[in-house]
Amino acid sequence: MIYQTNDTIVALATPNGIGAIGVIRLSGPEAVTIAQKIFKGKDLTRQASHTIHFGRIADGDVILDEVLVSLFFAPHSYTKENVVELSCHGSAFIIESVIKLLIKNGARAAQPGEFTLRAFLNGQLDLSQAEAVADLIASNSKASQQAAMQQLRGGFSNQLNALREQLVNFASLIELELDFSEEDVEFANRDQLKQLILTILGVLSRLIESFELGNAIKQGINTVIAGRPNAGKSTLLNALLNEERAIVSHIAGTTRDTIEEVLNINGVNFRLIDTAGIREATDTIEAIGVQKTMEKISQSALLIYVFDASEISIADLNTDLESLKKPGVPMLVVANKIDLLDPEQIAALPNTESTLFISAKQKERIEELKHKIYHTAIKGQLAGNEIMVTNIRHLEALQKTEEALSRVLNGIDNPITSDFLAIDIKQALHYLGEITGSVTTDDLLENIFSKFCIGK
Amino acid sequence: MIYQTNDTIVALATPNGIGAIGVIRLSGPEAVTIAQKIFKGKDLTRQASHTIHFGRIADGDVILDEVLVSLFFAPHSYTKENVVELSCHGSAFIIESVIKLLIKNGARAAQPGEFTLRAFLNGQLDLSQAEAVADLIASNSKASQQAAMQQLRGGFSNQLNALREQLVNFASLIELELDFSEEDVEFANRDQLKQLILTILGVLSRLIESFELGNAIKQGINTVIAGRPNAGKSTLLNALLNEERAIVSHIAGTTRDTIEEVLNINGVNFRLIDTAGIREATDTIEAIGVQKTMEKISQSALLIYVFDASEISIADLNTDLESLKKPGVPMLVVANKIDLLDPEQIAALPNTESTLFISAKQKERIEELKHKIYHTAIKGQLAGNEIMVTNIRHLEALQKTEEALSRVLNGIDNPITSDFLAIDIKQALHYLGEITGSVTTDDLLENIFSKFCIGK
Repeated sequence: MIYQTNDTIVALATPNGIGAIGVIRLSGPEAVTIAQKIFKGKDLTRQASHTIHFGRIADGDVILDEVLVSLFFAPHSYTKENVVELSCHGSAFIIESVIKLLIKNGARAAQPGEFTLRAFLNGQLDLSQAEAVADLIASNSKASQQAAMQQLRGGFSNQLNALREQLVNFASLIELELDFSEEDVEFANRDQLKQLILTILGVLSRLIESFELGNAIKQGINTVIAGRPNAGKSTLLNALLNEERAIVSHIAGTTRDTIEEVLNINGVNFRLIDTAGIREATDTIEAIGVQKTMEKISQSALLIYVFDASEISIADLNTDLESLKKPGVPMLVVANKIDLLDPEQIAALPNTESTLFISAKQKERIEELKHKIYHTAIKGQLAGNEIMVTNIRHLEALQKTEEALSRVLNGIDNPITSDFLAIDIKQALHYLGEITGSVTTDDLLENIFSKFCIGK
Repeated sequence: MIYQTNDTIVALATPNGIGAIGVIRLSGPEAVTIAQKIFKGKDLTRQASHTIHFGRIADGDVILDEVLVSLFFAPHSYTKENVVELSCHGSAFIIESVIKLLIKNGARAAQPGEFTLRAFLNGQLDLSQAEAVADLIASNSKASQQAAMQQLRGGFSNQLNALREQLVNFASLIELELDFSEEDVEFANRDQLKQLILTILGVLSRLIESFELGNAIKQGINTVIAGRPNAGKSTLLNALLNEERAIVSHIAGTTRDTIEEVLNINGVNFRLIDTAGIREATDTIEAIGVQKTMEKISQSALLIYVFDASEISIADLNTDLESLKKPGVPMLVVANKIDLLDPEQIAALPNTESTLFISAKQKERIEELKHKIYHTAIKGQLAGNEIMVTNIRHLEALQKTEEALSRVLNGIDNPITSDFLAIDIKQALHYLGEITGSVTTDDLLENIFSKFCIGK
């Protein structure tokens, strides 16, 4: 799709459904004049920007609604174009009628994300900030909202743009060398270039590393609860959620389907996944459940292994710990049912640094477990306002930049001609530019903005 | 519930769900100062009314959102109080966080309809206008929207208030007579009083009569399609709706459940009710269907009787017309399947003024039928901007006023003492006052506003 950008677009900016008001948004050169055509009240074209005016929307003699009109004159608006917002009564009939009337008077129904696209094209936001708008609207926890807000405020792009600018300078110097290729001069100081690239690679590597957590925070951190049948996994899930979500019984193998619930700890969403008990399954349905458990563990970001401290043998415990260990997936070991043991028995239990002794049934030390879940997953990475990559498109562009820059580095160390160096630097610039939108294609834009909701 | 009115209330004014923006509304003496506490930007308390300001919402160091703040200073707002609207990004998490933060800073979560209640209590709207706001939000057709808009703009209340004022004058004169009761004087001219009451009764009677149509327009006009099996009722429904809604077959008795669809003609919604064919049912399920048909007809505002012009006998036709006739329910007679007949056969068919010859299958003369449906139901009553009663509460108050005034009239004609006259006039004033809210009780207000949505 080729976006048209010189006309005036209209859409409902608030959700569909029943509410007191619905806000219709117009943006484009004719936004104010089109609104004026259907507005009975003051002359909107003669009002100041950022003012609100009461009046009626009329289709000929028929009054459609009494509304408040908010005016934003270019360039002082979200899109940097003239923007008008009509705050109507929240009837679907009225809103539809008013939008139809605006279209009849020269506006065009907006595509998904088209307002934000215009904000990007007109330089209000860079591309990663535009994407942050969608993330912000979709955010459902403090941590995901903070990551989106950080990105919207440009922390990420500012850092990349500053580095990109320095790289552009070197690129132009190397281009210059190409013009003088017969003279074998070096305008670009190779040591300084190398230093810059190492700095950029350092930043890239931190950003790439941040994706794992950033993405988990955006989606919710997959946290599998696993253990033998009747270890109390479902009771633990209920205790963590502080509600009766899973069916709990004394019958081993009660849980067959995996159950997913979201637990918010300190503003971060953990997707808790209760699983079927791991053991030699006694029937087919249960066998499928156990298989699912193993799959879930392999996809998880954190594993909570629960065992029944009143029953398990050291041998079984070690077998379990060995079989569940997975590189890259931190494991919390939880000894459950300590309410059934006396202090001496507890002291005799095998103890590792990461073992926590709890009673899910009595809700003992559940807060401590939550604390441990949070810190094991976050690893101190959410301390301040650090910049995180949460978008897979950004990750891919960062990785490609990293590859291209590694080739440049290699080219400096094992001298190659300036023209090859120039190609790799250009590639790195291209991929960096894709993140902030200094470099775009229609396909890229459509891919990004078509996922937006209409009206944004 | 006793409504508190001196504090500051807050609610989401837009629908729940996914959208580009969500608008949070604050109203009350502290609206601006509470907003200021969480706003990073200009000093809102020093800005002009009806202006918009960009800034950030912050909970301590944490930025919750970037927002636009609209300011309305008392009395120039919907509620006549200070009103602040925060236009946030449309994330449920963000909106919930911002509302919680406002509550933490001194606002109170609003009850349903509480903003409009305040608008009423502060004299911005009378009670019937406040009710019109809810009707406007619920309106789903041009006619229902127009009726609500008419009421919101006060056409109804203005008329009643003028008459009520004149009646109040007479009431006070009669009260005066009571003070001089021993002297047998008449301050209130009985002829003039009688004249006024006759005028009021005339207005009341027109308003009461308008309710039938007004209410039907608000709810949609119940229109039953009835006829013998295989007369083509479902085909007619599909033709009217211009879509394949009902299952159509040649098997008589295909339609068992009643089907309801809304057909909009000239902005008025008709609830078309397709029915099982009327005949001696051959099985139990079908018998229930026929019974349902008869029930639906008795509740309908308009009946469309369809017969198969290629098959029916005059005797059967007359039997049907006789059995379906119901006082107060206008009947349209539709001769269907004329595509199967030649002109001579059509000419030979029994013809009444209200019989329309159509082919549902070939979509012949369907527009003419729609025209006839509209005009039969509306009876020329929607010509201009006439005032209509659409609210059953208003109808009841009007009827009670009518009764009280009839007693006054009777008291004048068959002279009774001034004190009895005074009581009846007071009653009439009371009921009239209930409509516009000059007379209210907490119960009445709660009953009205509890049906509103939150945020209005």
